[in-house]
Amino acid sequence: MKQSPLAPIGGFPDIPPIDGVRFASIAAGVRYQGREDVMLATCIPGTSIAGVFTKSATRAAPVLDCQAKLGSDSTAGAAILVNSGNANAFTGHFGQKSVDEISTAVGDCLGLPLDRVFTASTGVIGEPLPHERITFVIGQLANDLSPDNIHAVAEAIRTTDTFAKGCWRQVNLAGGAIRIAGIAKGSGMIAPDMATMLVYIFTDAKCDQQNLQTMLSRQNETTFNAITVDSDTSTSDSVMIAATGASGVDATNDPEFEAALAEVMRDLAHQVVRDGEGATKFVEIRVTGATDDADAKCIAMATANSPLVKTAIAGEDPNWGRIIMAIGKSGAHADRDKISIHFGEILVAENGWVSPDYVEDDAAEYMKNAELVISIDLGLGTGAATVWTCDLTHGYIEINADYRS
Amino acid sequence: MKQSPLAPIGGFPDIPPIDGVRFASIAAGVRYQGREDVMLATCIPGTSIAGVFTKSATRAAPVLDCQAKLGSDSTAGAAILVNSGNANAFTGHFGQKSVDEISTAVGDCLGLPLDRVFTASTGVIGEPLPHERITFVIGQLANDLSPDNIHAVAEAIRTTDTFAKGCWRQVNLAGGAIRIAGIAKGSGMIAPDMATMLVYIFTDAKCDQQNLQTMLSRQNETTFNAITVDSDTSTSDSVMIAATGASGVDATNDPEFEAALAEVMRDLAHQVVRDGEGATKFVEIRVTGATDDADAKCIAMATANSPLVKTAIAGEDPNWGRIIMAIGKSGAHADRDKISIHFGEILVAENGWVSPDYVEDDAAEYMKNAELVISIDLGLGTGAATVWTCDLTHGYIEINADYRS
Repeated sequence: MKQSPLAPIGGFPDIPPIDGVRFASIAAGVRYQGREDVMLATCIPGTSIAGVFTKSATRAAPVLDCQAKLGSDSTAGAAILVNSGNANAFTGHFGQKSVDEISTAVGDCLGLPLDRVFTASTGVIGEPLPHERITFVIGQLANDLSPDNIHAVAEAIRTTDTFAKGCWRQVNLAGGAIRIAGIAKGSGMIAPDMATMLVYIFTDAKCDQQNLQTMLSRQNETTFNAITVDSDTSTSDSVMIAATGASGVDATNDPEFEAALAEVMRDLAHQVVRDGEGATKFVEIRVTGATDDADAKCIAMATANSPLVKTAIAGEDPNWGRIIMAIGKSGAHADRDKISIHFGEILVAENGWVSPDYVEDDAAEYMKNAELVISIDLGLGTGAATVWTCDLTHGYIEINADYRS
Repeated sequence: MKQSPLAPIGGFPDIPPIDGVRFASIAAGVRYQGREDVMLATCIPGTSIAGVFTKSATRAAPVLDCQAKLGSDSTAGAAILVNSGNANAFTGHFGQKSVDEISTAVGDCLGLPLDRVFTASTGVIGEPLPHERITFVIGQLANDLSPDNIHAVAEAIRTTDTFAKGCWRQVNLAGGAIRIAGIAKGSGMIAPDMATMLVYIFTDAKCDQQNLQTMLSRQNETTFNAITVDSDTSTSDSVMIAATGASGVDATNDPEFEAALAEVMRDLAHQVVRDGEGATKFVEIRVTGATDDADAKCIAMATANSPLVKTAIAGEDPNWGRIIMAIGKSGAHADRDKISIHFGEILVAENGWVSPDYVEDDAAEYMKNAELVISIDLGLGTGAATVWTCDLTHGYIEINADYRS
């Protein structure tokens, strides 16, 4: 698979170790051959773990299992094991059995209680997970654990991703410096109303578990829940964060920590969109002037998910009529004659009609950019929202008429 | 544009005259060259007119105008004028002016009050309608009116349609025989929650206007509001019916009439899906066993609108995992372990997992059919809904990355 043209320049970032976390990955042959497909991350005793997960009614066994384990006693350490190639979703009673087998094997090997082993699976739906291939390699994984393996781990969780996704920040809090690093996978079956894709974030900050959960959930709304590739919501999406506390710096209720966390989350969310299946354009949709924030997000998402808007963008056609259509269909409050639309800095439409100064050739020229900003002002109130999406191209059809996911 | 492979065999039906209705069409050069692009239908005094329209917040000027005129006094006759090539949508104050100019010209020519002239426009959004090209040809249109021109009229309202759509029924009511005939256009920007596309239905039955409206709205829910091509809702969608009463047969509150009307509406709705942009498969999604009908329709529409389901169908891949995903994301009640799924007669999944008797080769063979039935049973209640859609192919991308609508 050719790398997305929107991949970050410079490739995977050079992420330094996060105190209290070690990583390992291995080729277990779950489905893919000739590449690593299982990752293990371990965290020291006292690590707080928080997570947000898909709201799908048909969510996968490991998702249900992680949700049940979130509040477990953190005096023990913790482990996160993820495989790619098989989602262990819609696999009946066999699904939970696979989770238990893997959790038990990891717990036995590392001396952790069962409820401190979190697993996730991504890949094909509806086929039993050959968990014995995973349990077979856990001893080797435990041997290979190192603070420096985060890049390899990000590679191991890819499915249709064309590049591994990572991001990190270092910030000085009142108590001292802390680091946050995250990895993500995801490129299709990406839509809001859930915790989108697989994302793992690690920090050496110390943080109360409940507050960690609050910050993660709050920032999720404007990061992973503000992106969409194809409006389809996966059965396995998970965002988890582990705060080891190894830095000795307390980040509980720290707004600077939360801001840095939000940056990492937004960066990873953007990387997921940049790897949207078949994507050739990275598009920011900014909605302002809506009745409230919920209406703004509704309009932003209706626009970002519209196949007609997305194909127009693919065709580099400044087809603002389709944006009017998307606003209209969204169900949110809108007054046709108060809407204004910008493509980049170009005022396209206002007062219920095309702007008198609009020159289509300018807009057509702007649409050739790989990164686009479409701004919609409703002229009604102060509600605002920004979401990110990509275009809908032949590449998406090619990938999805063939790939079994 | 090559005709859709799903077009009805035998082409446009041989529709007999509907007493009290006359038709004409003409090439006015609104946008397209070398083809007819304006239609006029006239109805005798006493004709009841009912309609359902898009719920879009950015609906077009002619839609707002038609909605305002629906209840007007039917002792005068009525006229319906439709142009293709330009939607007269998001055209500011100029939009209503165009509607008024056209309505006045038609009214003056035919001796009708302004509120008995209904107009519609379909095509590009945001460009002023050159209404003088239409008013210029109204005299000629009036001269050409004939009961036999319905096929030509169906051709004139096409935009990206690859075939003209028509349907008719004759039924014997208690008071005698009546006929219902309808025409439709539409192939993209087709989604529910509105009155989808342009549809005009004519009958020589007599019917109280309010009851006609009730029957049309009721049957709309399971016909035009139960189809989707691309989840995008047009700014111009309209379904109108005119009951001339020329047969002398009263159909008010007649269930047989309503059943025949529903048949015509469903047939036209299916023709719209069969002409879905780029479509190669006609897909019926039947949902049963839901908590209620609303949940059933929600799941059916989530499945029908899922890009991943639609691309799998295009690729003839019996990818039932994506159907599980769509059920899960719909927001409707679902119990993963009670869902069963059939492709045609083939039981694919049950009890939260793939069926033990499932043979993928059989399902793959079934997916090669041009007409598919996907049945989903939730195992929860008695809610049911059926919707129709098509696949998502390279053809859709080709049409919409180029065509300006």
